[in-house]
Amino acid sequence: MTIPFNKPFLTGKETKYITDAVNSGKISGNGKYTKLCHLYFQKKFGFKKCLLTTSCTDALEMSAILLDIKPGDDVIIPSYTFVSTANAFVLRGANILFADSMKNGNPNIDANKISDLITPKTKAIVIVHYAGMACDMDKIMEIAEDNNIYVIEDSAQAVDSYHLSNSGKRRPLGSIGHLAAFSFHETKNIISGEGGMLVINDEKFIERAEIIWEKGTNRSAFFRGEVAKYGWMDIGSSFLPSEIVSAFLYAQLEELDSIQKKRKEIWNKYHYEINDLNDHGIQKPNIPDYATNNAHMYYLVFRDLDQRSILIKYLQKKSIKSVFHYISLHSSQYYIDKYVGNGCPNSDKYTNCLLRLPLYYGLDKDSQNLIISAINSFYEYS
Amino acid sequence: MTIPFNKPFLTGKETKYITDAVNSGKISGNGKYTKLCHLYFQKKFGFKKCLLTTSCTDALEMSAILLDIKPGDDVIIPSYTFVSTANAFVLRGANILFADSMKNGNPNIDANKISDLITPKTKAIVIVHYAGMACDMDKIMEIAEDNNIYVIEDSAQAVDSYHLSNSGKRRPLGSIGHLAAFSFHETKNIISGEGGMLVINDEKFIERAEIIWEKGTNRSAFFRGEVAKYGWMDIGSSFLPSEIVSAFLYAQLEELDSIQKKRKEIWNKYHYEINDLNDHGIQKPNIPDYATNNAHMYYLVFRDLDQRSILIKYLQKKSIKSVFHYISLHSSQYYIDKYVGNGCPNSDKYTNCLLRLPLYYGLDKDSQNLIISAINSFYEYS
Repeated sequence: MTIPFNKPFLTGKETKYITDAVNSGKISGNGKYTKLCHLYFQKKFGFKKCLLTTSCTDALEMSAILLDIKPGDDVIIPSYTFVSTANAFVLRGANILFADSMKNGNPNIDANKISDLITPKTKAIVIVHYAGMACDMDKIMEIAEDNNIYVIEDSAQAVDSYHLSNSGKRRPLGSIGHLAAFSFHETKNIISGEGGMLVINDEKFIERAEIIWEKGTNRSAFFRGEVAKYGWMDIGSSFLPSEIVSAFLYAQLEELDSIQKKRKEIWNKYHYEINDLNDHGIQKPNIPDYATNNAHMYYLVFRDLDQRSILIKYLQKKSIKSVFHYISLHSSQYYIDKYVGNGCPNSDKYTNCLLRLPLYYGLDKDSQNLIISAINSFYEYS
Repeated sequence: MTIPFNKPFLTGKETKYITDAVNSGKISGNGKYTKLCHLYFQKKFGFKKCLLTTSCTDALEMSAILLDIKPGDDVIIPSYTFVSTANAFVLRGANILFADSMKNGNPNIDANKISDLITPKTKAIVIVHYAGMACDMDKIMEIAEDNNIYVIEDSAQAVDSYHLSNSGKRRPLGSIGHLAAFSFHETKNIISGEGGMLVINDEKFIERAEIIWEKGTNRSAFFRGEVAKYGWMDIGSSFLPSEIVSAFLYAQLEELDSIQKKRKEIWNKYHYEINDLNDHGIQKPNIPDYATNNAHMYYLVFRDLDQRSILIKYLQKKSIKSVFHYISLHSSQYYIDKYVGNGCPNSDKYTNCLLRLPLYYGLDKDSQNLIISAINSFYEYS
């Protein structure tokens, strides 16, 4: 029996709510469960306006449309992220300026290097809260304000995580930038198989976002009785998910607190029971003072690719599945010919050296003890 | 109790298959049920390659990306269609040349007027099989071949419908153009709430379609063991649906034949029991010899807007919900300033005069008798 890297957690109410949606006769988008999910997020995290989407990718695409990204616009994006962070803006014609990560076990964008990338054509910065750890939002929002640039928080991994500002404010991730995008992919803390959400914090985008969400029509206003018939108003797509997806998601949201509690126990056990491996050049996650931990992921950063490959194979022999993560986008097959810049060495380091350990609700203590002792014993005797 | 316009039909196995998907631990896209749906369509209708999408809109967007639609390209699209038919191409920068519908109770594109719209910049024709009735595909494919233009079949409403060619071939709609897009929105014959599918008939598009479908990565090839790791290869999006959506859809597909049988009984009852209303200037659907009827929709075309409005209100009083359909896209708020052409009078006629009657699996005989006798008696005494 292999210990998998991930195993979707079910609260038990998912199929009950799906059956309810199905029996209500309304399973297309924007029904009862979609609205319940919107309200949940707006109330719990103070997001101004939420719109569920079929994926986090789609929420990022809505952001690009809302910001009127056009050929000739520059968008700053970390190189160490999933392709969708960039693709959503490339689809609208943007030129991507890739930013490097921080050193020292935190793959988030290095806020100190953003200013160097800004040109008169820079329209937006997309930051990614890697592993649910806040980026340096005080600095990033200041740079954005000074340069009149929009900030989009790619919060794919960042549900129920917070940023602590210099001024003492504790704000949920996704509530700080002008827009934010969440993921409910089956690997995330809260899931619906595929799924996502756009968060709109800057109110001026709300009306248009509803239109873009509904295939470029004013159907939402029509259903509220604000217009007599609905028609083609704008570009847009079918961004809204089926009610059976929203019903599934709502069952998960009701259990958010217990899911988070369990994941944090698992995360903390890794953090405190894996030996200090500094002598081997291996780093544990480095959570800054301004960030909280939402236990989305537990990772180690190795000295080099070889060291990581050796451990992956060793764990594999012990029937433990561990996986690496992103591959620097600036040097990807798609972008390498278009890339202008001096490289992103820290992003390349995480590409080669970061390893993720199994972390899911159902990971029992015995399995986790096996993983921890495998790692500890491997380095004790090597 | 109002007789609704539509009521989603459930086979009873939807939640069973969803539960199975959920218990398997794999609910993100491209799992067991997605593959079962692909195989079903490929086998039953002979489609070369199928890829489920989160909506028909998304399948159309994939088509636009596959055809490399760019600013400056012309795309011919009927004016009498849903906004997504056009928006998918507008998102890639296309200029839309709107084509008019036929006269005489068939809102499909008038194939005789397509040639006049072709310019050296025309890259594609998107045709819509309205109400599941085939367009004049012999003529359309000939024009496309003569001018080296791609044909996309917007088959949103056209599952299990056929075209009979001059040469005697009987081909499923969606298998004739280079690409085709289907919808499984809750109003369609086969449903998954929101949902769609891209069909690829021209094999040269298959490899790239898989990449575009998986966010621009070669993840599909990776899972088949063809490449060692997957990365950013192309533009793309998260077009694939959650397995819980695919599981729902598969339950529906298993019942396609009985769904179609029931819908055709209802359709035929309308067609033969509603009186001949020609004297009132009202037309019934006019299905050409080259088309079959998949009983997606039963509609009437009225003399004018007033005549239609009066009947809608009359039916409403009798607790019967009837609804109009598309609004000409060439004169929409979004496109009117961009539109170049001499108008689409037939499209405008259907905009003002077409009315759809309730048609769903669960429409019982008593309810349908009520609807039919309401219409017949209204005109008998008027």
